Amino acid sequence: MPPPHSASIRLQQYLHTTRLLRSIHSALYYDQNTGMPAAGAPWRGEQLALLATQLHERQSCATYADLVEDAAAELAPHAPAAKQRNLQLLRLELQRQRSLDPQLVAALALAQARGNAIWQQARQANDFQAFAPALEELIRLRRAQASQWASAEPVARSPWELLAQPYEPDVSKARLQELFAPLKHEIPPLLERAAAVPAMATAATDLPEAVQDRLCGELLDSWGYDHRRCQRARSAHPFSCTVGPDDFRITTRVVNGQPFSAFLATAHEWGHSLYEQGLARSESQDFPWPLGEATSMGVHESQSLFWECRVARSQAFADQWYPRFSAGPGRDPWGDGHRFWRALNPMRPGLIRVEADELSYCLHIVLRFELELALVEQGMPVADLPHEWNQRMDALLGLQPTTVSEGCLQDIHWAEGLIGYFPSYALGHLISAQLTEAMAGAIGPIEPLIAAGETRTLQAWLQTHVWPLGRTVNGEELVEQVSGDTLGARPFLNHLNGKVEQLLNRT
Amino acid sequence: MPPPHSASIRLQQYLHTTRLLRSIHSALYYDQNTGMPAAGAPWRGEQLALLATQLHERQSCATYADLVEDAAAELAPHAPAAKQRNLQLLRLELQRQRSLDPQLVAALALAQARGNAIWQQARQANDFQAFAPALEELIRLRRAQASQWASAEPVARSPWELLAQPYEPDVSKARLQELFAPLKHEIPPLLERAAAVPAMATAATDLPEAVQDRLCGELLDSWGYDHRRCQRARSAHPFSCTVGPDDFRITTRVVNGQPFSAFLATAHEWGHSLYEQGLARSESQDFPWPLGEATSMGVHESQSLFWECRVARSQAFADQWYPRFSAGPGRDPWGDGHRFWRALNPMRPGLIRVEADELSYCLHIVLRFELELALVEQGMPVADLPHEWNQRMDALLGLQPTTVSEGCLQDIHWAEGLIGYFPSYALGHLISAQLTEAMAGAIGPIEPLIAAGETRTLQAWLQTHVWPLGRTVNGEELVEQVSGDTLGARPFLNHLNGKVEQLLNRT
Repeated sequence: MPPPHSASIRLQQYLHTTRLLRSIHSALYYDQNTGMPAAGAPWRGEQLALLATQLHERQSCATYADLVEDAAAELAPHAPAAKQRNLQLLRLELQRQRSLDPQLVAALALAQARGNAIWQQARQANDFQAFAPALEELIRLRRAQASQWASAEPVARSPWELLAQPYEPDVSKARLQELFAPLKHEIPPLLERAAAVPAMATAATDLPEAVQDRLCGELLDSWGYDHRRCQRARSAHPFSCTVGPDDFRITTRVVNGQPFSAFLATAHEWGHSLYEQGLARSESQDFPWPLGEATSMGVHESQSLFWECRVARSQAFADQWYPRFSAGPGRDPWGDGHRFWRALNPMRPGLIRVEADELSYCLHIVLRFELELALVEQGMPVADLPHEWNQRMDALLGLQPTTVSEGCLQDIHWAEGLIGYFPSYALGHLISAQLTEAMAGAIGPIEPLIAAGETRTLQAWLQTHVWPLGRTVNGEELVEQVSGDTLGARPFLNHLNGKVEQLLNRT
Repeated sequence: MPPPHSASIRLQQYLHTTRLLRSIHSALYYDQNTGMPAAGAPWRGEQLALLATQLHERQSCATYADLVEDAAAELAPHAPAAKQRNLQLLRLELQRQRSLDPQLVAALALAQARGNAIWQQARQANDFQAFAPALEELIRLRRAQASQWASAEPVARSPWELLAQPYEPDVSKARLQELFAPLKHEIPPLLERAAAVPAMATAATDLPEAVQDRLCGELLDSWGYDHRRCQRARSAHPFSCTVGPDDFRITTRVVNGQPFSAFLATAHEWGHSLYEQGLARSESQDFPWPLGEATSMGVHESQSLFWECRVARSQAFADQWYPRFSAGPGRDPWGDGHRFWRALNPMRPGLIRVEADELSYCLHIVLRFELELALVEQGMPVADLPHEWNQRMDALLGLQPTTVSEGCLQDIHWAEGLIGYFPSYALGHLISAQLTEAMAGAIGPIEPLIAAGETRTLQAWLQTHVWPLGRTVNGEELVEQVSGDTLGARPFLNHLNGKVEQLLNRT
């Protein structure tokens, strides 16, 4: 008989296998969106459902529960904080998993698949009525989920707050309202001010696919892309995906008439990937433990937005890349680096969230956050959604969609029952701005570093101060630990103000 | 309570899930060889090992055994032959799985992974001594496996025969020796005769990668490649892989100095894929059942060889494709269609199996088959392998390798413990030739059909007579059912004789 392992070691082995299964799911997801032929979809759906069932079973069964409790019992009262925190997080997730009625889990999975399919058609047909019953059902099931989760939660939270916990641990409505209020107040006048910046037509500046592809490759090479550990491919929607501790993938797409779309998406997705690569897990015992995971979706987004908005859309960066974008006969519709930079920063409001620039983006999120609260907690009927959407869109951005496809049917999130996720996108902007201030305070202004091609210095700072924190903290605690200040909207608004002024002054 | 399902339906559901798991394994294998960055290999190894463990458990556990027995007990005495055959095959495989000591299964998996790694180094270093202990261990474990399997086998078989059963059901040494004897006897003089065909240097005719890629695409399009269900990519070694009932992948590679390598590999792998696509499983109840699987590896190989050797290397096909290969400035080193066809059919013996043409290929197999028997059943020491290899190579092909890398270390099979597989490659040639004769008897000579671009007629005949048979028969029974004759070497030797004469006459 081999010597019995400690409960902690047995738990680690169990978590390792769970992580293997989760990463198989990631590998299939990556293939689904890059290599898989279209007709493979139904079978792939069955494969993914099988893995999801196995994962749910693994993470809620009695064997696992016993293992977690044994490891907790084994823990000395003065064990290192990291060990205690790991077990605390595992217990919380276990309680959440076990609080759910398996019938609800199955019903949700079905409603999500159904919601996605109906949304695809309804969006194409511009038909909100066709989608409304599916959304009603999803909201009903997610409310039921929140109420089952409530029993597992150590503190009192509202239904919406419970649904948002997996994406943004410890988030509260009141805190989000506090953070978003200055955005609602200050961004609309800033948008008016930015209207004076002359528009740059982008369609006339389209770039051949092969050129865009080469530029994306050059960008990645200059930002430390390691061909041994990374892979990039094309997909309909850009994403970043970790398939193993040394296997990182990103995807982008080339959009007709949008010469910067693939380039900026590459910067964005690579930001996500750098964060994943920097988590404290590959070479340490943390790999299968919660502390080896991303702090929150808001922090994840802050890293992608840092590389997209603070670096790739900066003037220093534009000055550097303008010659590469404009090399070749007939390929310089911008005329100079400043106009090229302006083209990278249109600062114009639009109807579509995923096409929004950093100035109006957060208002799209505020709109969705408030509508989620209305739908989930304030009894707003689903039937009112199109009208409410248009009213609020007008109030926030001065625009009204003429179709539901450009309005409340534009995003996939609700169609898959994803409620509580949107605010993380806006938090990403706020966190990115505040971390950038902290970084500048420590190593000096970042634009001169970008101008000198020293992006590795920026990476090194993030690798030291941000990436390895993982789930030792939540998103707000991370900001406080790194910047010394409570998270706020001010750094982000300062950045936006500065940028609009810079664009106006140099026009 | 839902009404209880019949054992047969429960078994089908169980097999469906097994198939899902197996196809997840295939998807990961495909990714491993196409998209995965190099550093992802160790984690991928763990993912694949986890799936292999799950699959072994599923296919040998008591729950499954009960399900099979219940379904067998439920079967009426006069149930359709297909149902009886399915259960007979499932029981045989279950007995094989359950006859194995789990410790042996684990030891074999380790020895195979270790053998592969040591072989990679030994081959590179040209060092047989470094590899010998690993091979000895693999042979020892595979012999142990054969002896455990023997208890599950309904008929008496030798150790080598037991190991070959999973690839070629019901195969026997005596039958192979009988089939291979005429090849050993008649091919060497044919090779001498073919030496009079002038050699075509291929290095001078190299084609740019993009041109090869385009030609491969055109080939597939003309052979019914469906972009909705198929996907092609690059990998270090060409392969075909089924990821789902509507998801078929093939890969090829472009080899410097070998302008036909990717093209012929595409024809070959597409032949495998067409067979997989034609199996009786996608739209029928047969999908998760044994009858929906390929008849044998020999039959699988006969289908790839048919499209590679009987179609793509035929003169009619060469005449058709010569203009496409030679279009473009400086791209016609052949001068005419006949010389182009000769370049596709070098008919020269060489040291390396995977580079051999259809004339000498089977002698490479005979060599390996006889050495496997010597190693597994006749007590030949592993230390004698290099010397024995070289002696027999000289006797069969008149060539002697100067390094073990070009000799007995050239193939990966033994390094992974794969013993009993090689003969299927040669059977593929024999089966392909005999089925082609049957096809020609039914629809007329195939060269005029190829010349007329009517390859769909060939596909339709195979789809009707060969592909859907699956495991209703074994390889020899399939040939007998389709051709009306016992499998023999004569059709293949007739084909080779005819081809050599044709090459000589037109020189």
